[in-house]
Amino acid sequence: MPTSPDNAYDELVAIRTELSVLNSCAGVLGWDERTNMPKGAADIRSQQLALLSGMIHEKFTSPHMGELISTAENGDFMKDADSEKAAIMREIRREYDKSVKLPKELVEELARVTSLAQGVWAEARAKKDFAMFLPKLKEVINLKHRQAEAYGYQTEPYDALIDDYEPYATVKSISEVFAKLRASLVPLVHAIADSKRRPNMKIVENDFPVDLQEKFGKAASAAIGYDFDSGRLDVTTHPFCSGIAPGDVRITTRYNPRHFGEAFFGIMHESGHAIYEQGLPAEKFGTPLQEAVSLGIHESQSRMWENLVGRSRAFWTHFYPKAQATFSSFKGVAFDDFYFAINNVEPSFIRVEADEVTYNLHILIRFEIERDLFAGKIKAEELPGLWNAKYKEYLGIVPKNDAEGCLQDIHWSAGLFGYFATYALGNLYASQFFAKAKEEMPDLDKKFAAGDFSDLKNWLRKNIHSYGKRYSAEQLVKRITGKPLSHEPMMSYLKTKFGELYGL
Amino acid sequence: MPTSPDNAYDELVAIRTELSVLNSCAGVLGWDERTNMPKGAADIRSQQLALLSGMIHEKFTSPHMGELISTAENGDFMKDADSEKAAIMREIRREYDKSVKLPKELVEELARVTSLAQGVWAEARAKKDFAMFLPKLKEVINLKHRQAEAYGYQTEPYDALIDDYEPYATVKSISEVFAKLRASLVPLVHAIADSKRRPNMKIVENDFPVDLQEKFGKAASAAIGYDFDSGRLDVTTHPFCSGIAPGDVRITTRYNPRHFGEAFFGIMHESGHAIYEQGLPAEKFGTPLQEAVSLGIHESQSRMWENLVGRSRAFWTHFYPKAQATFSSFKGVAFDDFYFAINNVEPSFIRVEADEVTYNLHILIRFEIERDLFAGKIKAEELPGLWNAKYKEYLGIVPKNDAEGCLQDIHWSAGLFGYFATYALGNLYASQFFAKAKEEMPDLDKKFAAGDFSDLKNWLRKNIHSYGKRYSAEQLVKRITGKPLSHEPMMSYLKTKFGELYGL
Repeated sequence: MPTSPDNAYDELVAIRTELSVLNSCAGVLGWDERTNMPKGAADIRSQQLALLSGMIHEKFTSPHMGELISTAENGDFMKDADSEKAAIMREIRREYDKSVKLPKELVEELARVTSLAQGVWAEARAKKDFAMFLPKLKEVINLKHRQAEAYGYQTEPYDALIDDYEPYATVKSISEVFAKLRASLVPLVHAIADSKRRPNMKIVENDFPVDLQEKFGKAASAAIGYDFDSGRLDVTTHPFCSGIAPGDVRITTRYNPRHFGEAFFGIMHESGHAIYEQGLPAEKFGTPLQEAVSLGIHESQSRMWENLVGRSRAFWTHFYPKAQATFSSFKGVAFDDFYFAINNVEPSFIRVEADEVTYNLHILIRFEIERDLFAGKIKAEELPGLWNAKYKEYLGIVPKNDAEGCLQDIHWSAGLFGYFATYALGNLYASQFFAKAKEEMPDLDKKFAAGDFSDLKNWLRKNIHSYGKRYSAEQLVKRITGKPLSHEPMMSYLKTKFGELYGL
Repeated sequence: MPTSPDNAYDELVAIRTELSVLNSCAGVLGWDERTNMPKGAADIRSQQLALLSGMIHEKFTSPHMGELISTAENGDFMKDADSEKAAIMREIRREYDKSVKLPKELVEELARVTSLAQGVWAEARAKKDFAMFLPKLKEVINLKHRQAEAYGYQTEPYDALIDDYEPYATVKSISEVFAKLRASLVPLVHAIADSKRRPNMKIVENDFPVDLQEKFGKAASAAIGYDFDSGRLDVTTHPFCSGIAPGDVRITTRYNPRHFGEAFFGIMHESGHAIYEQGLPAEKFGTPLQEAVSLGIHESQSRMWENLVGRSRAFWTHFYPKAQATFSSFKGVAFDDFYFAINNVEPSFIRVEADEVTYNLHILIRFEIERDLFAGKIKAEELPGLWNAKYKEYLGIVPKNDAEGCLQDIHWSAGLFGYFATYALGNLYASQFFAKAKEEMPDLDKKFAAGDFSDLKNWLRKNIHSYGKRYSAEQLVKRITGKPLSHEPMMSYLKTKFGELYGL
């Protein structure tokens, strides 16, 4: 049946909106699975989620969708490549091509093998035994190679994998920025490690009653702009943000009654993700213009509120008196001592516990290893040795065993090759955006010190959130800051902040 | 495409199983809506639920389903009408016919009008103004008449409405039992009202810290057989049980820190529903054999555990010492005084707060009014007068206004005509089943007094839960007790128990 490009476009958006509603159902089920689900429901929950994702996949990859896309691409509205409709079509085409390129058999095999691999990985990590994990790891790597071949790529297979998490980014573009970052960051980390100054960590390792942590964390989250009328905060072992749909963006955290920062900065981090999700334009739900640009841009929002704002002097000028009024442990603790304690920098083995400065080196190591692995320059067998050598070179420390070395992360067993880079990209984006925001709004710190965070939130709404996927991460960075992504804003920020703290 | 009856049957069950999984997704969303959902998600939640129910309805009422059913009905397996397959086909045919008979336009009109009517009802109740509700009530009644005509019926329109909640039951069958019940119950209620004996209600209206209530309620719920590994207990304004799927059956309650019984017996009630859901045979999920017989049978399970067990001497012989150890308010309170206080009988206006004895009269009044309304014997305008006259006659009291009279329940505004009867049917089924269970297991009370409730649970599993919808409620009662449903077991139980308490 012949249809006009305009009608095809309308039908496409209608179908995709229905699939988005269906996907948001899966979002509720996924959130419930991690927060409330009784363990006896594990089996039915996997059936429910498999059914929903199967229905979505089947409808989205149908030949009819392909025809609609091809027809819509002939529309006059495609002539302005910068238009909203053209951006929507670009993203739908991209998703569709990626979806239909993956053979069903490969998708199922990946699900099967990574499910098994995660079990083996958990056991291998517990036993500190990389050799136990190696065979399954090789299987996963082979399947990811097959996935890259199925997608296709211009330069190298790893490009195709990165593209799943950071669309339009490439090994080349990331490598260039990361190389400069490394060259600048490693000396800073070494300088800090050599400094005689150390914060008193007892300040944040003390008694912090969980109910007070929750109250204080919620107040800070609401203050920076997370809307609890369209969200909620729960407790889970692994904190996360779930952007289910417009009006329903939920976060979780984990409380340590003997540590102030774990939950607090976790809440700030997830609130950053949530403020992004809540800022996506609800009226465009169902189109890519209501969806996040990339994992890296998402992470830029969480890191900005967690670190650039949440660990700043200005933020605590407002919040530290409140923290002192809330937690008796802070009685008599000077502001500067508290501020130093929440900004402690120390080379360590475990990525998820790393500080603002060293965190990026953990990521660079993983990125370099993955890149060389998929370029065939190294073999899976060599991972532990290469890992330890890089930790020695970049961070000055050597893991005692593979559990605190290359077995620490779940990602590889889950097939998430190409994912790690987005964490450091997030930090880089965050710094570059934040520097620009401060340039445009010189009194930002003064506002923060007065407890007013709306200027920054509105700036992010206007420049980033409101666009959804209209621009790629690369385009967005250039549009907002006038420059391509660079390591310089972050290094400048880190050198100033930690140079002062550590007397460098 | 011609297919064999066996193949058609297999495809039917496969489709219905998929629809059951989809329906269980809606179950999670519905539970979440009532427990956790942020208010900002109300709009997307209604879209999600409408999409899921629309997909289920569309697939289930498709001509293909009709063909499969007709083909399967020619199968040899239909020859044994008592077989599992024949029962499955009987129920699928029943559902299908009911679903396709309702025009989409009527379904949508009912949804629209009842949604508006509930709003008007809430306002009318707040203003104690029946006249304000009357026009909307008439609209709902008209639509329910249309629904009855669409379904079709043998004797009278109200039969068709009852059938939605209590399949295969009729006005005639219910009226006969209810008339006998009324004749026997009204004198008992009057005798109790005339008795000089009164419990000291201060015993249960005292300080009962919510955290202790939760702990105590959970312990009792687990003791009677609710499996928390496949369930959970949350707090909501209106308590409910949600049987989402095998392995996932959740209950809620509401705590009153100044009343012992509200939450406790609520938990017992919902646990009864949940034990039924958890006892349905998981391996038959997707077929009617894993689904509850009727609302009446469901209510029989909740009422049995709440009242016949939960308000018995034997139950509290085990639990009262624990209650005394838990709640300081019970210190020095004699067992008999506590037992009398939790079994207080008193004619009152509000159904949901009524006791074990008078509750049934609240239901009889509603049933008689609905029946005469749909038989055209009375008009909607006459409801307040008829209501008050019946309260005077059966319970000896007259509501001061319509808010504590005929405006108290949400049901009519929601279009739930035919629903009320199932509450009293539940009490009748419960008593008849329980009398039989005691006859077969004479040491049941001794077991209860020792904290062992497994015999009763297993008896219910074996005789009721394990069959799902294999037998109708009427068949089930006859199979288990050897007799048709009767008012006698309940009246015998009430007369004995309350005769002793009130010295009749």
